[in-house]
Amino acid sequence: MKFFQRFHQLFINNSRHTRSKIIVVPPEARCHTKAVTGTNTSFTARSHTLGELRVDHVNTKVKLCGWLQFQRYGRFLTLRDAYGTTQLIVPEENAELVEKIGSLSYETVLEVVGTVKARPTEQKNKAMATGDVEVEIEDMKVLNSCKQGLPFEIRDFTKVNETLRLKYRYLDLRHQQMQKNLRLRSKFINDIRGFLCNKHGFLDVETPTLFRKTPGGAQEFIVPSSQHKGHFYSLPQSPQQFKQLLMVGGIDRYMQIARCYRDEGAKPDRQPEFTQLDIELSFTTRNDIQTLIEEMLVEVWPDDFPKIPSQFPRLTYQEAMSQYGSDKPDTRFNWKLKDVTNIIQESQDCVISDDLKSDSNTACCLVIPQGKNNISGKTINKLKQFGKQLDASVKVYFTKVQDGDNLQGDLSKKLSQDTAHKLIHKVEGVSMDLLLVATGKWTDVHTVLGRLRTECANIYEEQGVEVRQKKAYNFLWVEDFPLFLPREDGEAGIESAHHPFTAPHPEDAHLLHTQPDKARSLHYDLVLNGSEVGGGSIRIHNADLQRRVLEDILKVEVGQLEHLLEALEYGCPPHGGIALGLDRLIAVLCDAPSIRDVIAFPKSSDGWDLMSRAPAPGTKEDLSHYHICTSDVMSETDLSK
Amino acid sequence: MKFFQRFHQLFINNSRHTRSKIIVVPPEARCHTKAVTGTNTSFTARSHTLGELRVDHVNTKVKLCGWLQFQRYGRFLTLRDAYGTTQLIVPEENAELVEKIGSLSYETVLEVVGTVKARPTEQKNKAMATGDVEVEIEDMKVLNSCKQGLPFEIRDFTKVNETLRLKYRYLDLRHQQMQKNLRLRSKFINDIRGFLCNKHGFLDVETPTLFRKTPGGAQEFIVPSSQHKGHFYSLPQSPQQFKQLLMVGGIDRYMQIARCYRDEGAKPDRQPEFTQLDIELSFTTRNDIQTLIEEMLVEVWPDDFPKIPSQFPRLTYQEAMSQYGSDKPDTRFNWKLKDVTNIIQESQDCVISDDLKSDSNTACCLVIPQGKNNISGKTINKLKQFGKQLDASVKVYFTKVQDGDNLQGDLSKKLSQDTAHKLIHKVEGVSMDLLLVATGKWTDVHTVLGRLRTECANIYEEQGVEVRQKKAYNFLWVEDFPLFLPREDGEAGIESAHHPFTAPHPEDAHLLHTQPDKARSLHYDLVLNGSEVGGGSIRIHNADLQRRVLEDILKVEVGQLEHLLEALEYGCPPHGGIALGLDRLIAVLCDAPSIRDVIAFPKSSDGWDLMSRAPAPGTKEDLSHYHICTSDVMSETDLSK
Repeated sequence: MKFFQRFHQLFINNSRHTRSKIIVVPPEARCHTKAVTGTNTSFTARSHTLGELRVDHVNTKVKLCGWLQFQRYGRFLTLRDAYGTTQLIVPEENAELVEKIGSLSYETVLEVVGTVKARPTEQKNKAMATGDVEVEIEDMKVLNSCKQGLPFEIRDFTKVNETLRLKYRYLDLRHQQMQKNLRLRSKFINDIRGFLCNKHGFLDVETPTLFRKTPGGAQEFIVPSSQHKGHFYSLPQSPQQFKQLLMVGGIDRYMQIARCYRDEGAKPDRQPEFTQLDIELSFTTRNDIQTLIEEMLVEVWPDDFPKIPSQFPRLTYQEAMSQYGSDKPDTRFNWKLKDVTNIIQESQDCVISDDLKSDSNTACCLVIPQGKNNISGKTINKLKQFGKQLDASVKVYFTKVQDGDNLQGDLSKKLSQDTAHKLIHKVEGVSMDLLLVATGKWTDVHTVLGRLRTECANIYEEQGVEVRQKKAYNFLWVEDFPLFLPREDGEAGIESAHHPFTAPHPEDAHLLHTQPDKARSLHYDLVLNGSEVGGGSIRIHNADLQRRVLEDILKVEVGQLEHLLEALEYGCPPHGGIALGLDRLIAVLCDAPSIRDVIAFPKSSDGWDLMSRAPAPGTKEDLSHYHICTSDVMSETDLSK
Repeated sequence: MKFFQRFHQLFINNSRHTRSKIIVVPPEARCHTKAVTGTNTSFTARSHTLGELRVDHVNTKVKLCGWLQFQRYGRFLTLRDAYGTTQLIVPEENAELVEKIGSLSYETVLEVVGTVKARPTEQKNKAMATGDVEVEIEDMKVLNSCKQGLPFEIRDFTKVNETLRLKYRYLDLRHQQMQKNLRLRSKFINDIRGFLCNKHGFLDVETPTLFRKTPGGAQEFIVPSSQHKGHFYSLPQSPQQFKQLLMVGGIDRYMQIARCYRDEGAKPDRQPEFTQLDIELSFTTRNDIQTLIEEMLVEVWPDDFPKIPSQFPRLTYQEAMSQYGSDKPDTRFNWKLKDVTNIIQESQDCVISDDLKSDSNTACCLVIPQGKNNISGKTINKLKQFGKQLDASVKVYFTKVQDGDNLQGDLSKKLSQDTAHKLIHKVEGVSMDLLLVATGKWTDVHTVLGRLRTECANIYEEQGVEVRQKKAYNFLWVEDFPLFLPREDGEAGIESAHHPFTAPHPEDAHLLHTQPDKARSLHYDLVLNGSEVGGGSIRIHNADLQRRVLEDILKVEVGQLEHLLEALEYGCPPHGGIALGLDRLIAVLCDAPSIRDVIAFPKSSDGWDLMSRAPAPGTKEDLSHYHICTSDVMSETDLSK
């Protein structure tokens, strides 16, 4: 019914307008197509996409548009669009067309009218979705040409240098893998909205990106104001303040696919702008939000992916660090750290027990199964170097298990036979295992072993030894993080482990007055295959507590946050939320080596848009308009040369 | 089934976690509720929202959360949330609770456990959705207090000064109208995505906002780079270049709800950042895109609004200007302009025929029906002033029709009896009508009369005389715009009427070489009730033509656009698109006096965020990080004082 209506409209409109549209496809054929595809031909000249023709379409007259991917003898053409490829053939007698086609360069844009034919059985191409048919060309129009000398062929993008791909991103986007990645991204995000907004009544609220600096966070880009000389907006690193203010405003179920900005300089696999799924609810709990995310991911999980469980494992920060030496453990492989402090400490006979003289020191062991075979002496030396670079205060001993209960390597001389036995027994080592025993401060020891654990797994996999479970999507929650950490810049005092709006764990509320560095928070991280893909918390909703944390504990000047503190005083509901880093999450889903492969127009790792060459030198005109100066300024005329 | 699963999970999670959730509502009750509301209680502590309780819920035990809107005698409370209000009562004997409630300030956040009771018939409140019931409180918890002295009551926001509303936006958002506006916005945009992505296979692609300046457009904000001294990103005024590059990249059906930026200084009802629905398709036509937008708006149009037609009227620019004196005519009222050049010109007897001595001059007349009664002499003087301010080169004569065929006022002496008769006859004037006759250059005359037409309608409506059709949503297309216009800055030469990527009308292609200023374009505007709510065009896909337009006709230096020109050379498909200004469109839907009323956190008209006081003075640290200077710089420590 709707289809006929649309055709009716088309004809009416054509009669009204001079630049009319040639309908070569009889309405019935179009309707038939629509019933099959539903979507991708509406409002265009084509009757079908290049991915959809099947034997059912034989004898249908079609109009196709796409890029010339390949041609042989001027008679056989492969035409490509976003949806696939279709083989076209030219009747041999049409010498004129054969000649014309012979002269076309690849990537020329064509519009073709023809009839679908079944391919002879022996010529069917099972590897091609449309391989059972071909289209006999009746008429062909070159819609646009492509100049000779493409920077790269549109085949397998992993073979093209990434700099070239970024410079010619508009060609790179034609790669099937990029098309697939962006399609998965669009659908995944759209399904998330469906779950949150349509099913659970969330409100999609857009928050500003021209805002005021939030003190104490990441470096934020600044934007000079032309109206207010010497004043600057900041591009926010997240809508954190706004989402909390929405809760104060009674918008009690908020979501946004939010553009965020962080000026982190040249970090690999970071982007100056990125996208997060931002969620906040009033009257909620940590468990509620975790359940929400679990239900959401289960529901939007792509159909052709291995199922994920309806609940994700939850580890405390303490558990994650003890077992994996990481607050974002990759649980696709089981190698776990084991505390061996007692064994080393009790054995007065061994040299390394000296390492544990300080009470706060520990010893911890990681077993690399069959490491003797898989990790060479040279690699061990590299790993030792790597460990030292990570943290020189941690000592790491590499030793191998021999004959079931003897040690070879660093510890063979340093441990007594008895201690060695106990150690091997405790860590369940068997012959040929490589043991990494590290001593030093608890957090440092675990962090170093955690990194070495990942490094050894990478070494195994580079050698073709499978360590991580294939096609596994191991989500897990890490929670009960410390609320504060020692300041990263080395100065005395503590800083927020996440951000100053994180609520303390209710069991530790009393510690805020006495030992804030011991307090846990209601922060939680969502981890997928060893990547942090999300984080959130229950927030502080009490103005006094928030002021105390900012002023007394963090010693932050609250001038820039007065509006938020005042908002908490006017009836702020208890609330909490989470943000998922969509670029990273989707990169894992697409098995992409870099988040750049799931972003249409990413910056290079040092912040360049290689295609347009942004950022560009500031012009005199702009700088004067914004009341700023730099040491190196050109005029617009200089620039365009 | 799903509900039980969820409850099952809740209990499992509770047993696993120390900070467990108290489930006061028996699972059956919750399930029942969910069956009714489906959405707004999941993942929260409440069992029901404050808008949903009905007689069906009588005897249900409920847990409610919300803001104290009102209380009487400490016994009757009105609790409010985003979904409505519910009356709570305290049993008289619970003196302790009565006292506690008596001391609470309004806007305190409460959590209440109680049982739903039917109200006695005489106490039912028909004006309240939940007015048939009340909840008898069994337990009450103050979740957060609200300090005394709210800046305004949460009642009717139109009565509050807008500066105060913006400063305390988090309180303003509690107003029912703001809640309704943001809810309509969220749903409207979500439905648009559903139509485009789910039904028509569009891809939602996010494009960067840190980009390179597009020459010749609006003033773009600049963002200094810390990594590249003296270099700046620009915040794009639209994703125009990106969407065209996506087409080159074979992403042939693109949509985005795009954040755009324009630094326009203090213009009323403009925002430095705004949101547009951005659409682009390959292999499409103007008519296709217009049909797409018509089908989309019909489908997403809110159910409780008057229906809109399945096709919108289409006017050429020429028609719109001739009939309404505007390229965005408000067709909710019929007052049309009529050309009277011949009548004036032919009558050698009248003084004003001198105005038409120049061949290019015209005379045009607007009839204001019954203007004699409704527009006073004093107002006419003001209108004359207004006309002169708009364009001093246009002469406007105000004259009234008397006794059917005589004129009073400016023209009574200046036209002969015969000419007056002809004029009245031509414009179908009747007694008591006010005629506005303007002479001058065609475009100027029509523009001035177009503005006076709107102005007179406003004057009528201020006096309570209805002119515009009520609750009407008059969409229309304006098309066949000129491709170029004389430069706005008064310099010699022409500039793009819209942007330099607009394709010329195929019938006028030949004029590009000879008389480019006469060529029409394939640009189209979508107009709603006299506001331009969208615009788009078929784009130039041919590199040579694009270069010719930029270099030869517009004399633009193309250095900054080389990437786009090169992209067109590598097989760019024919394409076109449109962008709808969502803030404005939704403001019309919400009948909001300003777009600020449909944006959660807008800036004031001079670019301030009155809540956070952004933009803020630049700090020494930031300026030095970004290698820039201003004449007026403070350090971070100065700032927080």
